[in-house]
Amino acid sequence: MTLDAVLARIDTDLPASLDRLMQLLRIPSISTDPAFKADCATAADWLVEDLKSLGFDASARTTPGHPMVVGHGGTGDKHLLFYGHYDVQPVDPLNLWDRDPFDPEIQDTPKGRVIRARGAADDKGQLMTFLEACRAWKAVYGSLPGKLTIFLEGEEESGSPSLIPFMQANAAELRADIALICDTGLFDDKTPAITTMLRGLVGEEMTIHAANKDLHSGSYGGAAANPIRVLAKILGNMTDARGHITIPHFYDGVTELPDAIRAQWQSLSFDHAQFLGDVGLSIPQGEQDRTPLEMLWSRPTAEINGIWGGYTGDGFKTVLPAQAHAKVSFRLVGDQDPAAISANFRTWVEAQLPGDCSVEWKAHGNSPAGVMSIDNPAFEVARQALTDEWQVPAAYIGCGGSIPIAGYFKTYLGMDAMLIGFGRDDDQIHSPNEKYDLECFHKGIRSWARVLAKLS
Amino acid sequence: MTLDAVLARIDTDLPASLDRLMQLLRIPSISTDPAFKADCATAADWLVEDLKSLGFDASARTTPGHPMVVGHGGTGDKHLLFYGHYDVQPVDPLNLWDRDPFDPEIQDTPKGRVIRARGAADDKGQLMTFLEACRAWKAVYGSLPGKLTIFLEGEEESGSPSLIPFMQANAAELRADIALICDTGLFDDKTPAITTMLRGLVGEEMTIHAANKDLHSGSYGGAAANPIRVLAKILGNMTDARGHITIPHFYDGVTELPDAIRAQWQSLSFDHAQFLGDVGLSIPQGEQDRTPLEMLWSRPTAEINGIWGGYTGDGFKTVLPAQAHAKVSFRLVGDQDPAAISANFRTWVEAQLPGDCSVEWKAHGNSPAGVMSIDNPAFEVARQALTDEWQVPAAYIGCGGSIPIAGYFKTYLGMDAMLIGFGRDDDQIHSPNEKYDLECFHKGIRSWARVLAKLS
Repeated sequence: MTLDAVLARIDTDLPASLDRLMQLLRIPSISTDPAFKADCATAADWLVEDLKSLGFDASARTTPGHPMVVGHGGTGDKHLLFYGHYDVQPVDPLNLWDRDPFDPEIQDTPKGRVIRARGAADDKGQLMTFLEACRAWKAVYGSLPGKLTIFLEGEEESGSPSLIPFMQANAAELRADIALICDTGLFDDKTPAITTMLRGLVGEEMTIHAANKDLHSGSYGGAAANPIRVLAKILGNMTDARGHITIPHFYDGVTELPDAIRAQWQSLSFDHAQFLGDVGLSIPQGEQDRTPLEMLWSRPTAEINGIWGGYTGDGFKTVLPAQAHAKVSFRLVGDQDPAAISANFRTWVEAQLPGDCSVEWKAHGNSPAGVMSIDNPAFEVARQALTDEWQVPAAYIGCGGSIPIAGYFKTYLGMDAMLIGFGRDDDQIHSPNEKYDLECFHKGIRSWARVLAKLS
Repeated sequence: MTLDAVLARIDTDLPASLDRLMQLLRIPSISTDPAFKADCATAADWLVEDLKSLGFDASARTTPGHPMVVGHGGTGDKHLLFYGHYDVQPVDPLNLWDRDPFDPEIQDTPKGRVIRARGAADDKGQLMTFLEACRAWKAVYGSLPGKLTIFLEGEEESGSPSLIPFMQANAAELRADIALICDTGLFDDKTPAITTMLRGLVGEEMTIHAANKDLHSGSYGGAAANPIRVLAKILGNMTDARGHITIPHFYDGVTELPDAIRAQWQSLSFDHAQFLGDVGLSIPQGEQDRTPLEMLWSRPTAEINGIWGGYTGDGFKTVLPAQAHAKVSFRLVGDQDPAAISANFRTWVEAQLPGDCSVEWKAHGNSPAGVMSIDNPAFEVARQALTDEWQVPAAYIGCGGSIPIAGYFKTYLGMDAMLIGFGRDDDQIHSPNEKYDLECFHKGIRSWARVLAKLS
């Protein structure tokens, strides 16, 4: 019962595992904000040291952006690569946090104990489940659970600009039999899952320019172009009354769900009332001819993620601003082409600009949707390991988010990727008061020990 | 030739007049921002001291907001009240200013010398034209030019919440034969004007609430309500393709221009290409069946003055925010009822809210449009004085802005008000790099000396 010794070690070492995670969570590695560049490097260095302590030959590799952490260790017939990311989302609005996002704390909640901090779930807590499984294995056996490559990115929350060049430049070093990715969630609180369908992402930032300076709405209002109104009018047209996206050719390449997957999803008995109810909502707002699970997993979206212009302080200022801005993102599915989506959106916006206005664009990365093939027998092996740990049959599921790395492993390194994660819907990733359940962290470590025992 | 002595004194004292104005401009009396409350009091105190130095019995009078400055002085048959305001607009976006907005400087420009500072034109420079005229008069005669009451407000740029209660509580003290208001502009660079038509103003701030916290657009996008989209959709509907405002009953009470006024305005040969060209625009964007001068002076508007929600920093954040906000203002004309406009707007917005969303309102003041009667012979007397100074016939004009005080003098004190000001269209009031032309300041002082000589 060798695995039992590893699992027992995981159980007894849990307090120390949490201490290590808290150390990593204290580093404010916000990749999108240049002010935190040094912190991203600090997080990378921390992980290099931790990997070295496990016997990995590890280093932080410089890129034009934040470092990649790469470590190699162990021996075995099967070569597994593990991917995670050490960077985190920004923390604003800071005033909605109950405590400093980078001062992690274990808290008791009605639903159990949680680790509260930015990055607790996305993705520091998740990536540490794998390293802690390796640590327990090493403590019991004196060696790593197989031939492993660890590959940790620091730009996942800011469009991964260095990722593809790095994979291309280091393809021989990174290629393995399969990639394991820990950045996804359980299906529900009790049901483990392997995610096989991911949405792609296109991020666009637009600035509408009108007058060459801010104007007084008393002097100019009624005659001068108002870029906020122009922006609102255009973005307000982006969806119609039925929730359909109106950008021409937007749905090109959107594929319908195979009947088998649709049937499996129906069997999951997804409770959208509960899902929305947990965040104070009740009505699915997307395409009205689709089920809520399709809206979330297999249908594309167009969302405004940020908007700003004019006077936004206390009181009132009767200004017609010179500019107005928005950040818009699209979640893609099936064969939607990110470059075409970007081009069609820009053309559609520009066609609606009134005279006197112009638009300036900034791209914030794009990636196609990903659909994993489950033909690789590793999927069924891993599914059984997850089922053993959670005592509930593990599910193959879709995911509304975008984890482009999964597709990149296939495209650039010819490897299958398997997405196993332990997040919960209420983890508030990307939001104030992000948390990761202790149960998820603990069972996550144990799950990886089981998966590694079967795969290696 | 007594007036000539006063005018000569104004000319020789101009450098000292400018020094005094610069002192006042250095006080950052931004009334809408609570952080500058002490500065508003400092500006009021500075004016009280200046009025005392001219022989006025002056004091700063406390209100629930910023102080009112009231001074009485001089003797004569006719009692004139002068109104101005010492508060200024916020200065953001600060990065678009070429220098510190509260470090005034005399600058040479291709169009002449200017005083560059927040408040230079609106309204510190303008109000000081009157005080400097009094000062020159006193220097020559040893007394003020008639029986004068000076009434200076510190909340004009933030909705004047204390104004009506103060006028009501001090009606006997403030009532005079006519009110002179210096907060408007010339018709064009060379043509002085008396403004007889002012637009009213309704200011509304709205917050759309959706989920009870910020959400990740990957996890929730497509199913959860996005308050930014809701806001954009509603505000985008506020005007139609012809520039008409779509809020029900919005045009109730809008009166057509009398033929005589329309004819006079046509004779002014307003050059809208030049007016818009000066700020980098070319196309009048308002109601397409109206002339540009009507859009600016006699037609109502609906403008978005500020909008914000979601992530607005560097980079990208795939967030669905819990809230989105906008500040909206309406310029009113004729008999439009501010309370009805506010109520109809709110009802119209609320009717468009999707399920799961709510709206929170904050009122930012409202005032009806004002139309001055020019039956009072003081108007023709003043017009002649202005014509004498500028050597161009002075015009009766409209003004797109809102100066509710003019109507309040009539409503609460039974006095006519006469709006005489020396601002130019390119003064950039409410915008970065506000300025006031030295010529306007100088001729403004001389104009008041001439008006006071004729009126008192």
